Amino acid sequence: MSESAGIGLLDELKRELSEIVDINRAINVLDWDQNTYMPPGGSTGRADSLATLQGILHARYTSAKLGELLNRAQDAVAGLDPDSDDFNLVRVAKRYYDRQVRIPEDLVSEIARTGALAYAVWVAARRNNDYASFAPWLQKNIDLARRLTDHIGYSEHRFDALVEEAEPGMTTASVRAIFSELRPQLVNLVQAIAPQVDTVDDSPLRRTFDEATQERLGREVSARFGYDYTRGRLDRTTHPFEITFGRDDVRITTRYDKNFLPMALMGTMHESGHGLYEQGIAPAITHTPLGHGVSHGVHESQSRLWENYVGRSLPFWQYFYPVVQDAFPGVLGDVDVRSFYRALNKVHPSLIRVEADEVTYGLHIMLRFEFEIGLLDGTISVKDAPEAWNAAMGDYLGITPSTDALGILQDVHWSGGFGGFQGYALGNIIAAQVWESVLKAHPDLPDQLRQGQFSTLLDWLHTNIYHHGRKFDPADLIQRATGAPLSSEPYMRYLRNKFGGIYTL
Amino acid sequence: MSESAGIGLLDELKRELSEIVDINRAINVLDWDQNTYMPPGGSTGRADSLATLQGILHARYTSAKLGELLNRAQDAVAGLDPDSDDFNLVRVAKRYYDRQVRIPEDLVSEIARTGALAYAVWVAARRNNDYASFAPWLQKNIDLARRLTDHIGYSEHRFDALVEEAEPGMTTASVRAIFSELRPQLVNLVQAIAPQVDTVDDSPLRRTFDEATQERLGREVSARFGYDYTRGRLDRTTHPFEITFGRDDVRITTRYDKNFLPMALMGTMHESGHGLYEQGIAPAITHTPLGHGVSHGVHESQSRLWENYVGRSLPFWQYFYPVVQDAFPGVLGDVDVRSFYRALNKVHPSLIRVEADEVTYGLHIMLRFEFEIGLLDGTISVKDAPEAWNAAMGDYLGITPSTDALGILQDVHWSGGFGGFQGYALGNIIAAQVWESVLKAHPDLPDQLRQGQFSTLLDWLHTNIYHHGRKFDPADLIQRATGAPLSSEPYMRYLRNKFGGIYTL
Repeated sequence: MSESAGIGLLDELKRELSEIVDINRAINVLDWDQNTYMPPGGSTGRADSLATLQGILHARYTSAKLGELLNRAQDAVAGLDPDSDDFNLVRVAKRYYDRQVRIPEDLVSEIARTGALAYAVWVAARRNNDYASFAPWLQKNIDLARRLTDHIGYSEHRFDALVEEAEPGMTTASVRAIFSELRPQLVNLVQAIAPQVDTVDDSPLRRTFDEATQERLGREVSARFGYDYTRGRLDRTTHPFEITFGRDDVRITTRYDKNFLPMALMGTMHESGHGLYEQGIAPAITHTPLGHGVSHGVHESQSRLWENYVGRSLPFWQYFYPVVQDAFPGVLGDVDVRSFYRALNKVHPSLIRVEADEVTYGLHIMLRFEFEIGLLDGTISVKDAPEAWNAAMGDYLGITPSTDALGILQDVHWSGGFGGFQGYALGNIIAAQVWESVLKAHPDLPDQLRQGQFSTLLDWLHTNIYHHGRKFDPADLIQRATGAPLSSEPYMRYLRNKFGGIYTL
Repeated sequence: MSESAGIGLLDELKRELSEIVDINRAINVLDWDQNTYMPPGGSTGRADSLATLQGILHARYTSAKLGELLNRAQDAVAGLDPDSDDFNLVRVAKRYYDRQVRIPEDLVSEIARTGALAYAVWVAARRNNDYASFAPWLQKNIDLARRLTDHIGYSEHRFDALVEEAEPGMTTASVRAIFSELRPQLVNLVQAIAPQVDTVDDSPLRRTFDEATQERLGREVSARFGYDYTRGRLDRTTHPFEITFGRDDVRITTRYDKNFLPMALMGTMHESGHGLYEQGIAPAITHTPLGHGVSHGVHESQSRLWENYVGRSLPFWQYFYPVVQDAFPGVLGDVDVRSFYRALNKVHPSLIRVEADEVTYGLHIMLRFEFEIGLLDGTISVKDAPEAWNAAMGDYLGITPSTDALGILQDVHWSGGFGGFQGYALGNIIAAQVWESVLKAHPDLPDQLRQGQFSTLLDWLHTNIYHHGRKFDPADLIQRATGAPLSSEPYMRYLRNKFGGIYTL
């Protein structure tokens, strides 16, 4: 094959893939709208549109034409630098094609339609603490996930088929191995802190904070981090999220509680972290299947890094606390920065995952990881799930929800499917490893945070992580960025060091 | 063909058409977002997504599969009641197929992409009064419209190909005939009023009106008309519009001027009229190509009916004026309802179409209708267009814009294409004819409006117009609803009667 023929082929492949990206972005716009501004009446029609677009997307991604282009492109890029964009575009697109081609189009549409309908049911069920209304939809999603994993195939556990999608290169067993190592260490740390829980007073966070001011502060801090509002938005939702329609339109959402400051403020920092990742994708790959974050775990590492490693650090608050005090006149005048920092980092087993502290958070995730596996393999039935949830909360965290709204109904995820929760805990682990690497490269980073300077950090993340999109697989990316394979040691070092300073351990 | 085979065929056709509707709705969601919440960075990516989806929509609507289904379905429904949904679904879908199949897919994508990009250019050009930056995009749109009309074909004038799309059954010549009859009568009326213009004082409308209160009043009045906010939304945009994603998600937008009350309030009534039409489509046809308003002209008749025939009538204000006075304490205390009503109906030739009074409005439209034809057939060049615009404003309305922002750049339409303006004037004509018919059926309607009762009116419109969607062609629908063919006589009767009461004619 001549070189010019090879170039023509890649152009044709890229054109086809760019249209697939266009369809995917359109689906994301419909999702975003559904979660922000869609009136209640819209849900049935939206389910239809999403199902049809998912069907079209799937048909395009599994077409004989694309399959042939990818096969020919593999030959065409075989001699290219394995670190080049083109080589990895073909590699990643081919792997996704091979996966998708096993899934029938009608199943894709059914999953999309069911998810859109189940979302509205979940919103009402959580509001009304009505698990019974959601149960049939949970069962539908389980049945669909079983059919899906049967089609995709797996070697050890059907859950592997879902883990591989969220965390390329990982399996149920490899996630379990990490969690098994981590769980006892986290439990030990929680237990060590337990007798001293009340030495930290978080009541200052539970005073009254004007919502409009909270929103202004959230916008200010996210903009200072580097989130670009000419290429993004901040809106309100029941369940906060980040979503991308390409690096130049990346949107985040949050929710407000006028009696709990961290809800929106830390939530906005969290979603900004996701947003910074997506806004930082290299322009050359944004309109390709490489043009978004590489895995759920690496994505979550960035939201956690900005939320916790920056946003719950003392240096950051030495910079930003006076701004917050000024913003709420008379509310925090009696609270000094160190007390505020300690309040933000109070460790106490609690019912709601998204409000959990850094130490107990991982336990919420491990519970869900095992719970999903149980729902999928039938060891937990939909009927018994609320009771099983409450029992598991006792096992993992020593507390029991008083209602299903505070228990099994709290997360949006199972209205849409399964297989993503492990990424939240992996994210914390990866964040710690990345944070150690940035600190090693820039030991004065805490001083910079104390000055409200975030550009050194953002530049490092851009160069080492954001820029690459999905070009390198997660394990490879982590090795390149940090010089070491994934390890939970930096995470436990970070937790012991930080919380050893807050509590007397 | 057996009856059961016929039913199976229709089901297959409806399934295919419903997916086409789904794609169209998705495009509308992307359009809505682009015009409401999309950050500036999103425009290039949005243009790509819209172009790809328009291409897919076109491919689906011109597929050999659909063509064959439609051909077979024509036979299958030949024996059905010509007033049945199925008969008309096949009739309307086949006509649209025959039109679309002549247009190449790449032209459709190019029109969509160019329109999305040109929109952003137009917004900036109008803001900066910079016609030169918009001119190349206007030229692109003219070139695209010429290619489009060449493909569609036409007998007398290429503009016919665009008129037929907006107003099924009409031609350039038939529109011109109506406008030629109307123009001298409107000019006469304007001239008769001219010496008395200053006997009506509209300065009360130009006081200071809190924007949030304006929005609340807009929501209140639209909800009282019957616009259902559980199936709709009101948002803010540069150029107000209504858009539908099916009868259960119909959205309207408006814009606010704190120093000009009618901008948002009358604008919201106008868009509510469009919204009421779309929300009133029969559920049985909402998910089919029959499931939206039948023509630009009939659509505009409903926005005008609610805005002008209801919203600028004395009986309505006898009901609603005390609410408005209470909403803005101290602002309108010295203005009685009759003075307010007269202010709202002041006739004076002005530069901006969307702010024009009921008498001069039609002249703005006739100007644009001839201007579009001139741009398309080359008798007006893009370079000379601003000057030609200003000269035409002199001819039609006796005034000249001082800037292009107040002149040729004022309307969003030419960022997206050509062929829709005549509908605005036809809408006024149709609205008058419909209004006469409702009044004949319900002579106490003014009394009902005076009580804030709109349900009799809405029910009549539902039954006679909204319910049918595109099932009957405009001329047929007008005949069925009013018992007479389209005529401009009721319109002139209405204007002479109303403005004869406001001025001494």
